[in-house]
Amino acid sequence: MKTLSEHRAFNGVQRFLQHDSAEIGLPMRFALYLPPEPKALLVFLAGLTCTEETFTMKAGAQRLASELGLALLMPDTSPRGANVPGEADAWDFGVGAGFYLDATREPWARHWRMESWLLNELIPQVQRDNGLAKVGLFGHSMGGHGALTLALRHPGRFQSLSAFAPIAAPMQCPWGQKAFSGYLGDDRSAWAAHDATELMRAQAAAPYPQGILIDQGLADKFLAEQLHPEAFEAACDAVAQPLNVRRHAGYDHGYYFIASFIDDHLRHHASGLA
Amino acid sequence: MKTLSEHRAFNGVQRFLQHDSAEIGLPMRFALYLPPEPKALLVFLAGLTCTEETFTMKAGAQRLASELGLALLMPDTSPRGANVPGEADAWDFGVGAGFYLDATREPWARHWRMESWLLNELIPQVQRDNGLAKVGLFGHSMGGHGALTLALRHPGRFQSLSAFAPIAAPMQCPWGQKAFSGYLGDDRSAWAAHDATELMRAQAAAPYPQGILIDQGLADKFLAEQLHPEAFEAACDAVAQPLNVRRHAGYDHGYYFIASFIDDHLRHHASGLA
Repeated sequence: MKTLSEHRAFNGVQRFLQHDSAEIGLPMRFALYLPPEPKALLVFLAGLTCTEETFTMKAGAQRLASELGLALLMPDTSPRGANVPGEADAWDFGVGAGFYLDATREPWARHWRMESWLLNELIPQVQRDNGLAKVGLFGHSMGGHGALTLALRHPGRFQSLSAFAPIAAPMQCPWGQKAFSGYLGDDRSAWAAHDATELMRAQAAAPYPQGILIDQGLADKFLAEQLHPEAFEAACDAVAQPLNVRRHAGYDHGYYFIASFIDDHLRHHASGLA
Repeated sequence: MKTLSEHRAFNGVQRFLQHDSAEIGLPMRFALYLPPEPKALLVFLAGLTCTEETFTMKAGAQRLASELGLALLMPDTSPRGANVPGEADAWDFGVGAGFYLDATREPWARHWRMESWLLNELIPQVQRDNGLAKVGLFGHSMGGHGALTLALRHPGRFQSLSAFAPIAAPMQCPWGQKAFSGYLGDDRSAWAAHDATELMRAQAAAPYPQGILIDQGLADKFLAEQLHPEAFEAACDAVAQPLNVRRHAGYDHGYYFIASFIDDHLRHHASGLA
């Protein structure tokens, strides 16, 4: 791991790092906040067009994370520098839009392996390096999709789960359909394994009995077409998964919304990771 | 005033605004955070290369400002779009580097009127529009210079004062010398009227008997050459001005430093503005 920059913050240290990812076959960037007394790891997955810097800089999470002893890991949102033809032609596919899965379709399959990078490489290494046994997962928008799906695809791997404005039923929305057909191909049976609502519907019992927290702004311009929290709610109901979807009048899809409720998410995770 | 964008944040609203400034002769941008129950106004002046968005996005100030009832005003750091030849050739002079004074030297004198814009136009209008009688002032680096000098040049205008890593003796540092010679000309007697240390030294009595707060990181790469807090300290001592300079090991010049101590500044101002 190579430290690109570091900044003292709230008696801890905010680092920007890079390592050569074997899974992705390219250098990958991430940010790591270490509080003075780290007790557990909390991973935040960001949304379309974001980088490892977005949440790190805008969410105001370090203040309470320092107090609660939560180390924060903010991975980048896709491979960069792969030079796949067309990789940067759209803001919702390719660079900055990894969707937290392993692509199976060419020309993406070699490098677009975000799930394997996170689960097999980055998170275990950060846990080992810092002696952090427990891990929580959350994210925003595309990263909310990532948090919900990775937590459901890897039972027992994460001890706490939440999301801000997640793409909660990607098979039912344009962003998800574009990503899944591009990365996974046209066979929709392969898509369900990466759709939070479908994954929840397939559970035999509630996978997070301590509850999942979701915050959603009602002035979010993507809510009606892209996010579908009600579909995820119905799936949770069907398997008796406790879910707290808080709907906030006036709040939009951006980081002022996230910052406004970040403390509640940190406390939710601190409780689940205790 | 034209609203460019607005975001609900911490039960209040974060707006980005623009108005046509008569003093500057150009449209000027600023950000305004209004908490649910605004009681006083607190103006933050940003540093070199920053805009109205920098502090707004990175400092994490809205959370406690909402609770304390402080409206936050974040002006842009210079005129933009004046098309003065060479205005964007340097990062420390011209665009993004207004130094919070009225230039007297050509070709800057027409538009570079940051002091008049703030004191005669923007701050009074925001106070009027929102019924806020009391105003505090703070800033960072070049904006710390702006806060200290504007507060000392306009006695009684601001009821509370603080700074992060201010350029505290600009006549003694390269940034200040470049700005003052460019905006004010070579007559150093004109410079002293815009140098916080010189202004403090000239006071007959302590202008802020309730105290001035300054935070300074000791890993700040600009500290030794550009900032000179010790010169301002000596000037405060000489006129019995209470000053609390807190020196923080390991902290640098950036916004992770500011975010780490922003709450203390907000409480300092809330107390002075009560």
